[in-house]
Amino acid sequence: MCIGRFLENAWNIATSDPRKVIHGVKAGIALTLVSVFYYMKPLYDGVGGNSTWAVMTVVMVFEYSVGAIVSKSFNRMIATFLGGSAGVGVHWIANQCGEELEPVILQASVTILAAAAAFSRFIPSVKSRFDYGVMIFILTFSFVSVSGYRVDKLLELAKDRASTIVIGTSICIFTSMFIYPVWAGRELHNLTYKNLERLADSLDGCVTEYFKENEENNGRKHEGYKFVLNSKATEEFMASMARWEPAHGSFKFRHPWKQYLKVGASMRSCAYCVETLGGFINSEVQAPELLKKHMREACMMLSTSSSNVLRELAMTTKTMTRSTKTQFFVQDMQFAVQSFQDVFKHLSKQALLLTEHEAVKENTAQKTKTVPIMAIFPITTMATLLIEITERVKSIVV
Amino acid sequence: MCIGRFLENAWNIATSDPRKVIHGVKAGIALTLVSVFYYMKPLYDGVGGNSTWAVMTVVMVFEYSVGAIVSKSFNRMIATFLGGSAGVGVHWIANQCGEELEPVILQASVTILAAAAAFSRFIPSVKSRFDYGVMIFILTFSFVSVSGYRVDKLLELAKDRASTIVIGTSICIFTSMFIYPVWAGRELHNLTYKNLERLADSLDGCVTEYFKENEENNGRKHEGYKFVLNSKATEEFMASMARWEPAHGSFKFRHPWKQYLKVGASMRSCAYCVETLGGFINSEVQAPELLKKHMREACMMLSTSSSNVLRELAMTTKTMTRSTKTQFFVQDMQFAVQSFQDVFKHLSKQALLLTEHEAVKENTAQKTKTVPIMAIFPITTMATLLIEITERVKSIVV
Repeated sequence: MCIGRFLENAWNIATSDPRKVIHGVKAGIALTLVSVFYYMKPLYDGVGGNSTWAVMTVVMVFEYSVGAIVSKSFNRMIATFLGGSAGVGVHWIANQCGEELEPVILQASVTILAAAAAFSRFIPSVKSRFDYGVMIFILTFSFVSVSGYRVDKLLELAKDRASTIVIGTSICIFTSMFIYPVWAGRELHNLTYKNLERLADSLDGCVTEYFKENEENNGRKHEGYKFVLNSKATEEFMASMARWEPAHGSFKFRHPWKQYLKVGASMRSCAYCVETLGGFINSEVQAPELLKKHMREACMMLSTSSSNVLRELAMTTKTMTRSTKTQFFVQDMQFAVQSFQDVFKHLSKQALLLTEHEAVKENTAQKTKTVPIMAIFPITTMATLLIEITERVKSIVV
Repeated sequence: MCIGRFLENAWNIATSDPRKVIHGVKAGIALTLVSVFYYMKPLYDGVGGNSTWAVMTVVMVFEYSVGAIVSKSFNRMIATFLGGSAGVGVHWIANQCGEELEPVILQASVTILAAAAAFSRFIPSVKSRFDYGVMIFILTFSFVSVSGYRVDKLLELAKDRASTIVIGTSICIFTSMFIYPVWAGRELHNLTYKNLERLADSLDGCVTEYFKENEENNGRKHEGYKFVLNSKATEEFMASMARWEPAHGSFKFRHPWKQYLKVGASMRSCAYCVETLGGFINSEVQAPELLKKHMREACMMLSTSSSNVLRELAMTTKTMTRSTKTQFFVQDMQFAVQSFQDVFKHLSKQALLLTEHEAVKENTAQKTKTVPIMAIFPITTMATLLIEITERVKSIVV
């Protein structure tokens, strides 16, 4: 049962995103290429028994996106070099101090550097860029300074290690870049415009759901904002990986990836509002039907104009062009805000008259009439805010 | 300059949370203990040249919390065992098929298993629990099946490898549990009640900020909710690590960690509302001063009663007791909601009269009077919601 569900789950993932299967195949190919070094005698003699390290490099470094692989490869190479050098250096110093002090110095240096390295991984700037590097640094340092006590051929070992790492990382980078490459930058780009679309959909969905006339269920279409809420970590990871990638497609080497993070943050602040709005749909306090009918048109117009702006932004982001229509949609939205305010002003007078005349029967009308306003106002405010921000962002990105 | 800032940054982290420094020291100690195996001749002979693997185990496995270390150790042990067995198995099968087919079978098995392993890391249930294990599995499998082609003493190698891993992980677990242990469970517990307090503070802060009479700046005390918004990943990670931990302090082995995730989700849904509310503080559309004064008391009462409930919940979570006061505070809050509605009902009539009399001068009063209501209503709704949920959660947790 449990295994069946697991396989079904795996199958769903595989069919919904075949690139994940391709990634698996690519990992298999990379590992096969590396293990070829074991089977081909001449190569084996060249690299030596250390070619297990090439296998290890591939297993550790092979990530999903090109950026992540380049980043890890770079980290691994630099950290191995630095760790090895530090190890040899400490070993040399310890050697000079005589046989008695030697183990003490080696031991102390391992302890101090390991402590410093473990602590440095808490520093955000280190964590986000060099987390893997710090680990490899301390690993290599411990190996070299400790094993140096026994093995005399330190430099030869270092040469072997370096060549295996170069072979391993080259295979990884080659495989990832030339077989169906997955670029972190493109992923981030796609995520951003898809999230803009999701936000537009859930905004529309929420308002439609709220004002629906009969009890039909429209399939919870408006839950897309939840995805937006939870994509912060993914965005940040991909933006930091994208910096490592060479130019690909329409993305240049120094593409302003940080702008995507700004758009992402604006989207999230908008999604918070949609989430608040979503709360009202299932709220027990509902506006009277009569009032809903009155407000329906103005609200729908408002949300449609907001989601039009979002969709247009998604479009311009997707195609990386600057559209004159964006400005038009923004104006359209501002017009919708204005006309919504007029409708509301008119309506609130009407509602009060209603209350005064039918005070007993419709006693709650006055109180609950604020619900639709409350439900809509955050959107107008936040959508305006969002557009202000994203407008500026777009003008930089494109 | 850059290094100076980096060091200052590191110093701030060290002084604000000394446990991170202690973690560094612990990592140093663990690595020192392991490298002792190199220096002590008899032990060296026992474990053999493979004791680099013990060093590697310590570097890879030593994480911040006990739960993470136990989880990684477990993953490493099981995965090494499974990977090794599979490697030996495939090697035996390949051997039976004759010398021609042997490399083909070995190569194919590496490719297929590596592809399957790389793909399986996309499956959420594998990712969250066995990510490290899958990596070690494929690493060990490649080593064994590939190196088996050259080295005949596979079983001896396996025995060595197993003993180094046991030594490495034991040292890690020992060091982490007996020197200033950091329990993921306790961290999660602390994070939860601190987040409840943060939420209460920012709710109070927001409303105070909104109704402040003069322009004093109260130091952006109300930004704590941002921390709540961003702690989803941390909570999930710690909850999944906490399951690996033995009983500690007042936490039993099968402490209901998932309940903390539920409380966390409720807190976040509340924080979304606070974030929306926070938007209104800096909004350009402000209610007229007169109206603000009228609403001030009722709003303050409302937010204070909500934050009292939150603080009480924080208290009961912290001490893991059930308090009779919680119910009292909830009733208090419901009373505040009621009286707020009364004030509002009274006020909206007054405001309309105002509009009618001074139509030109105070033209915007009617429209903008909805701002404070809008700003407050989400809290009442959501706080009530939150309390409903957290109430139930508390009764299970305690």
